[in-house]
Amino acid sequence: MEKKIFIPESETPKRWYNIIADMPNKPLPPLHPETKQPINPMDLAALFPEALIQQEVSTDRFIDIPEQVLDIYKIWRPTPLIRAYNLEKALDTPAKIYYKYEGLSPSGSHKPNTAVAQAYYNKKEGVRKLTTETGAGQWGTALSFACNKVGLECEVYMVKVSYNQKPYRRVIMQTFGANVYASPTDRTQAGRNILAKDVSNPGSLGIAISEAIEVAASDQHTKYALGSVLNHVLLHQTIIGEECIKQMEIAGDFPDIVIAPLGGGSNFAGISFPFLRYNLTEGKKIRCIAAEPASCPKLTKGKFMYDFGDTAGYTPLLPMFTLGHNFMPASIHAGGLRYHGASVLCSQLLKDGLIEAVALQQTECFRAGLLFARTEGILPAPEATHAIAQVIREAEKAKEEGQSKTILFNLCGHGYFDLQAYNDFLEGKITDHHLSDEELESNLTELQKFQPA
Amino acid sequence: MEKKIFIPESETPKRWYNIIADMPNKPLPPLHPETKQPINPMDLAALFPEALIQQEVSTDRFIDIPEQVLDIYKIWRPTPLIRAYNLEKALDTPAKIYYKYEGLSPSGSHKPNTAVAQAYYNKKEGVRKLTTETGAGQWGTALSFACNKVGLECEVYMVKVSYNQKPYRRVIMQTFGANVYASPTDRTQAGRNILAKDVSNPGSLGIAISEAIEVAASDQHTKYALGSVLNHVLLHQTIIGEECIKQMEIAGDFPDIVIAPLGGGSNFAGISFPFLRYNLTEGKKIRCIAAEPASCPKLTKGKFMYDFGDTAGYTPLLPMFTLGHNFMPASIHAGGLRYHGASVLCSQLLKDGLIEAVALQQTECFRAGLLFARTEGILPAPEATHAIAQVIREAEKAKEEGQSKTILFNLCGHGYFDLQAYNDFLEGKITDHHLSDEELESNLTELQKFQPA
Repeated sequence: MEKKIFIPESETPKRWYNIIADMPNKPLPPLHPETKQPINPMDLAALFPEALIQQEVSTDRFIDIPEQVLDIYKIWRPTPLIRAYNLEKALDTPAKIYYKYEGLSPSGSHKPNTAVAQAYYNKKEGVRKLTTETGAGQWGTALSFACNKVGLECEVYMVKVSYNQKPYRRVIMQTFGANVYASPTDRTQAGRNILAKDVSNPGSLGIAISEAIEVAASDQHTKYALGSVLNHVLLHQTIIGEECIKQMEIAGDFPDIVIAPLGGGSNFAGISFPFLRYNLTEGKKIRCIAAEPASCPKLTKGKFMYDFGDTAGYTPLLPMFTLGHNFMPASIHAGGLRYHGASVLCSQLLKDGLIEAVALQQTECFRAGLLFARTEGILPAPEATHAIAQVIREAEKAKEEGQSKTILFNLCGHGYFDLQAYNDFLEGKITDHHLSDEELESNLTELQKFQPA
Repeated sequence: MEKKIFIPESETPKRWYNIIADMPNKPLPPLHPETKQPINPMDLAALFPEALIQQEVSTDRFIDIPEQVLDIYKIWRPTPLIRAYNLEKALDTPAKIYYKYEGLSPSGSHKPNTAVAQAYYNKKEGVRKLTTETGAGQWGTALSFACNKVGLECEVYMVKVSYNQKPYRRVIMQTFGANVYASPTDRTQAGRNILAKDVSNPGSLGIAISEAIEVAASDQHTKYALGSVLNHVLLHQTIIGEECIKQMEIAGDFPDIVIAPLGGGSNFAGISFPFLRYNLTEGKKIRCIAAEPASCPKLTKGKFMYDFGDTAGYTPLLPMFTLGHNFMPASIHAGGLRYHGASVLCSQLLKDGLIEAVALQQTECFRAGLLFARTEGILPAPEATHAIAQVIREAEKAKEEGQSKTILFNLCGHGYFDLQAYNDFLEGKITDHHLSDEELESNLTELQKFQPA
């Protein structure tokens, strides 16, 4: 059988899958932080175009992908599904391992799947500029590319620790024409407030979100784009899983287990939601496992509560597994996983026992990443190594149990921009991080006041 | 029509094409530097395994690719042929532009095509370690990957200016398990001689070759691998063009013009030789154009003479277009093109008027690279931008002449490891370089003494 399974562009799925249609418990509504009453989605019109707000609350099972978006997708989609024959051999496992490789996109990750869609809908409604935050730089690069393709300006607030650790990420955003700032900046009130308390604050996704939102809210021609967390973002990523379904069919196989890293939830949702449809509507029992970093374990150690999506408290309150919006994750190399909460959809599914979660330490993940590079020839992004480490655990379990499992995972990005991280790992400079129970407790206690009566 | 044209792994070409079989004038023999007599190919047995020496002098038209090599090729091959619809639109040209994308390989360039083959043949003959040189790092990465796959040690001498400009390249070689040194080093007599004259010598491919050869020649279990120039290297790269022929057939098209950058000649040979077969055996008139940097213009300003392949004068004398083995190219960002000579096969073909050559300045090339990134969504390696700049010239000519030409070029690698170069370009720090006629004249005059009677 072929190692790499392609589908022709003409057979690309033409619809995104909206899991809300099939969820047994629908997601709880976002609340206004002061009234604690459900917000009217159109209250978000200052930040998002109408089409995206409608997708945010849609209960349609499938949503058509616009022609122009499909046309831009062709630059890198459909992406290959690859059988990890070489990794299987190295592990001497009876498990069959497949990975969907999203690293072939212009930004080297899955992020352009939604960036292109968001840029398209904004442009269509007359917006001139998009602002956003970025952690490891994947999302900022994706939006820079997308804005360039549809003809929008792009302004990126990049988490300072990543800006300093990964200067080349800034360069690639600039090659696509974006303006990039190290967050916290003194360009916004949110940034200035943080800097006043701690001038050397390394930043976080939460802070950068606050800055990008503030800029968008203060100009009518500017809107904001989020790279994860929101329902419409997860929706756009389902193109990944929809392609996998067709490719698995070509392979004559079907996954028992689907694994992806989880930062906000969009790459996990992208590959797993279309397979969860089989669980929700046809009674299948595919195990969908979210792999998170032990240093930022919202799914395994956080609580399901209402919390802000950002650090400054500008967003509505969202019902999610969270470590508290003031939680400051350790500066691990998987920058894209350093976010305090999980998307509403992923959180509800976990609460209902429909998905699983596991937390992994970064040294185990880098070891897995190195083995993957040496066997499969692709250096994985640090975020993606979390999925690989869990795949290896499952493959070893299959070996112990003498069972042939079919495992599918999302190789959501390559690691060519993260060579400093691999350098540190090879030089023994990477350490594991353990969450302080006191800090967690204190953050979550503070959240009590934001819960509805 | 599909933008990306794939062929299944099962239909991968199973043979390399050896252009020597069809050349009207066969390449002149390498000479011994002292006797000026043709060397016996087996004199090279200290450096290369027998199978590769046989390929070096073979006159068979096709050579079978070993099963294990084909199996490793599957990690990234067949690579896609992509129609540059978006670039065509931006140029408003009637030309049809296709590119073969070799950046999907484990090293991000075409180099593993030969690295895997060379590692395979060495391993088969009992070799334990390979040494090599690398410029921009592409070749060293490829050989590191290949050695890791077949189970050989790998020792890489990296040109110092690249080692310093591109530290992440060192890291990726190390992730594949190689030992990497900044050349000139004090590990070899060749390196020590250079450092004695100039302790801050930035290095060159020629110097690094001398070091790697010296180490290999001094240990019976160690051999040497070259990433370009030699006949067997060019042979292995023809998998690129052989795939293109099948893919062009699927596209229902055929190139009028084939363009590739030329450093030593292997990526140019890889894509163009299989098409030149149609010129040599069927009377077709495909224009094959080698794009070289204006700062290292051996094809357009050098002379066809016998010269050493390296700086120290360890290699046999080779008949080639050269700037002289003492020529020190300016430190341009396309490190892979900073080599004083052109392969024997490319040189003979140019001498016989069977291929064309053009020299381009790097600012024009980076402008072309940026346009390509913004339209096609792939950031090209600085080496590859030389091909793109020439493609744009030809596409603009087609527009002026109102003719629809079909242009094929080799996008031999991505630029994710070269973001410092793009940063410098965006900041206006990149300048053009003009060759000093005096230096050229002096280098070539010195060569007179090495010519046969």
